Amino acid sequence: MAPSVHPSSSPLFTSKADEKYANVKWDELGFALVPTDYMYVAKCKQGERFSKGEIVPYGDISISPCAGILNYGQGLFEGLKAYRTEDGRITLFRPDQNAIRMQTGADRLCMTPPSPELFVEAVKQTVLANNKWVMVSLIPSRFLPFWFYVPPPGKGALYIRPLLIGTGAVLGIASAPEYTFLIYTSPVGNYHKASSGLNLKVDHNHRRAHFGGTGGVKSCTNYSPVVKSLIEAKSSGFSDVLFLDAATGKNIEEVSTCNIFILKGNIVSTPPTSGTILPGITRKSISELARDIGYQVQERDVSVDELLEAEEVFCTGTAMVVKAVETVTFHDKKIKYKTGEKALSTKLHLILTNIQMGVVEDKKGWIVEIDHFIGTDSFPDEIEGKSI
Amino acid sequence: MAPSVHPSSSPLFTSKADEKYANVKWDELGFALVPTDYMYVAKCKQGERFSKGEIVPYGDISISPCAGILNYGQGLFEGLKAYRTEDGRITLFRPDQNAIRMQTGADRLCMTPPSPELFVEAVKQTVLANNKWVMVSLIPSRFLPFWFYVPPPGKGALYIRPLLIGTGAVLGIASAPEYTFLIYTSPVGNYHKASSGLNLKVDHNHRRAHFGGTGGVKSCTNYSPVVKSLIEAKSSGFSDVLFLDAATGKNIEEVSTCNIFILKGNIVSTPPTSGTILPGITRKSISELARDIGYQVQERDVSVDELLEAEEVFCTGTAMVVKAVETVTFHDKKIKYKTGEKALSTKLHLILTNIQMGVVEDKKGWIVEIDHFIGTDSFPDEIEGKSI
Ligand SMILES: Cc1ncc(COP(=O)(O)O)c(C=O)c1O
Ligand SMILES: Cc1ncc(COP(=O)(O)O)c(C=O)c1O
Repeated sequence: MAPSVHPSSSPLFTSKADEKYANVKWDELGFALVPTDYMYVAKCKQGERFSKGEIVPYGDISISPCAGILNYGQGLFEGLKAYRTEDGRITLFRPDQNAIRMQTGADRLCMTPPSPELFVEAVKQTVLANNKWVMVSLIPSRFLPFWFYVPPPGKGALYIRPLLIGTGAVLGIASAPEYTFLIYTSPVGNYHKASSGLNLKVDHNHRRAHFGGTGGVKSCTNYSPVVKSLIEAKSSGFSDVLFLDAATGKNIEEVSTCNIFILKGNIVSTPPTSGTILPGITRKSISELARDIGYQVQERDVSVDELLEAEEVFCTGTAMVVKAVETVTFHDKKIKYKTGEKALSTKLHLILTNIQMGVVEDKKGWIVEIDHFIGTDSFPDEIEGKSI
Repeated sequence: MAPSVHPSSSPLFTSKADEKYANVKWDELGFALVPTDYMYVAKCKQGERFSKGEIVPYGDISISPCAGILNYGQGLFEGLKAYRTEDGRITLFRPDQNAIRMQTGADRLCMTPPSPELFVEAVKQTVLANNKWVMVSLIPSRFLPFWFYVPPPGKGALYIRPLLIGTGAVLGIASAPEYTFLIYTSPVGNYHKASSGLNLKVDHNHRRAHFGGTGGVKSCTNYSPVVKSLIEAKSSGFSDVLFLDAATGKNIEEVSTCNIFILKGNIVSTPPTSGTILPGITRKSISELARDIGYQVQERDVSVDELLEAEEVFCTGTAMVVKAVETVTFHDKKIKYKTGEKALSTKLHLILTNIQMGVVEDKKGWIVEIDHFIGTDSFPDEIEGKSI
């Protein structure tokens, strides 16, 4: 399995105190934490509202042993990426959607969320503060504006991880009296090593979520419970696990960290977001793009039987964008699907990444550019000095 | 709702630096954190084994923002109590059962657990280190051995909270590379304010757990999802929430932090521990005690219909021991049950607390005495000096 953190002596990147920019080998990086320089932290008491947080050096946080997140799993996370377009701009993909999803999750877990404006602003500040964590340009750095140093197109991205966690101390089951909104970043390469397509295993022992639970929000509580399935599947050579619905065990739901689509004829189908699967932002975007190019998209229950008879199957998520599924294993059956150049998943991947990387014009209003002046007035002096 | 932490200026206890023992008003305390003096901390890397930890001053811990517990909810907790018997001994109730339950949970969440021996030893050390956090005896303290200062019988207890959390940094979904086993304590009074009996509301919107999930282990992931139900119920004047099974919504499962029993004739029934409810240690003990006094105990699916027709309903858990249910509200129906002096729940509560407090002889081997010499050789010098 991939390491969870690249040791600071990793040959995949170098970061020395006297270097202005870290040197990252994007092609080999994978999806493990490379600690970057700064993080964003804001706190809010129960019943109050979040106000602007601070950019502080990346590092351990101090937390009560009695905190809601440590005892009762009161936490949400988000995941999005910062891209560099070919003409050197830094962009985010639909960060407002992550902000809104965090709001929905906070309502479910009874926490106070940051406002969507504060969320997006905080994400931008965090990306700007970590400009060192990008591949060094060939042009001497002092001649370039600092925002030039996010990863080059197609070679990984700066992954952004916002957290909203109950950090106040709470002994009886209740919402914590204080919440922390924190954002850290890490340069990442590919989530899955598989280059051709994913090999999924249908899990018959574990279910991911039930109606009336938290499957529809990005709650931390949905993730540790799937680790066992993942380890079992990976130890048998599978890339990931496909979960069935908890109520009937007859319909497909999603994969551990991505949504799933099947293609048959001209119809693209994907399970509905009725509370047990995560409403993926990539899922929503891909549905729209598939419609744009003439496919019919149905959000509805998708049975295992249909899955087994599909022509193509693919997954969507921030980490992998769109990824073809090469095989699905259901009990003793192993079904092979179309992948490669001619697959719809390849086409959709290209259309979406072209928008994300700024290769084609964004007619959807999905791309949010990080203006390097935005928010910098609120940076501590020493960070402003370092960045520009 | 009860406060989550008593402020250090709370009139419910005093703890000044120049006092040797804190003065706690047990009758008024409720179930909120009163920070005590020391906690236990041990760490273990993935693939290794826990070795003896340390008693350190109680306080915030330092943790990576990328820790498994903060991002993916990789955490378990336990809850048990230290009692003082009438003859001055300090006892624990079946701590080996908590140790074993943590092992089962660790297996489910793919963490390394402490061995049961290490668990029990660590709990003992933590209780001994916090002897200040008990009511001051009338006898001048210097004439008494330090272990005399746990709460007097019947007046609250020292609640012990062991945690096993993924503290190593992990970005892709996986088990954290490092785990922390931590124990803190807090003097507590009654969990529920209601003196006569609980007023439960059956929740029709939320479910607690599903087959193939984590309902059967004490995972932090089972708790933040029920906070919304609890807040809704409490705001309508209910004491707590009763959850139905996720598969059919026809059977009762358990209450947010306790198991449930119904009585009809000579038969005591309680839902089975088949993966969706927590196998409570009080539940197991009460089942045995009820059999001892001539009741038939059935562990089986209990339908809502049966609940509505029961003569008595009661809950069990470490926090409340045995607590009568006075009413259950199901849609518009409010059913009243037998409580008070003559109720079976009152009888069982007395039998169990008599064993726990050492009023009657423990013929079951449930009581583990804390020998005040055990483990003290591993205390840091300054703690030994303070305690004795
Ligand atoms: C369970 C799950 N499903 C689906 C997704 C995909 O969501 P998005 O496209 O917003 O990244 C994620 C997160 O990435 C996830 O964790
Ligand atoms: C969900 C739940 N059910 C039941 C119980 C009762 O278990 P025990 O009797 O071991 O305290 C607890 C914990 O106290 C719990 O959290």
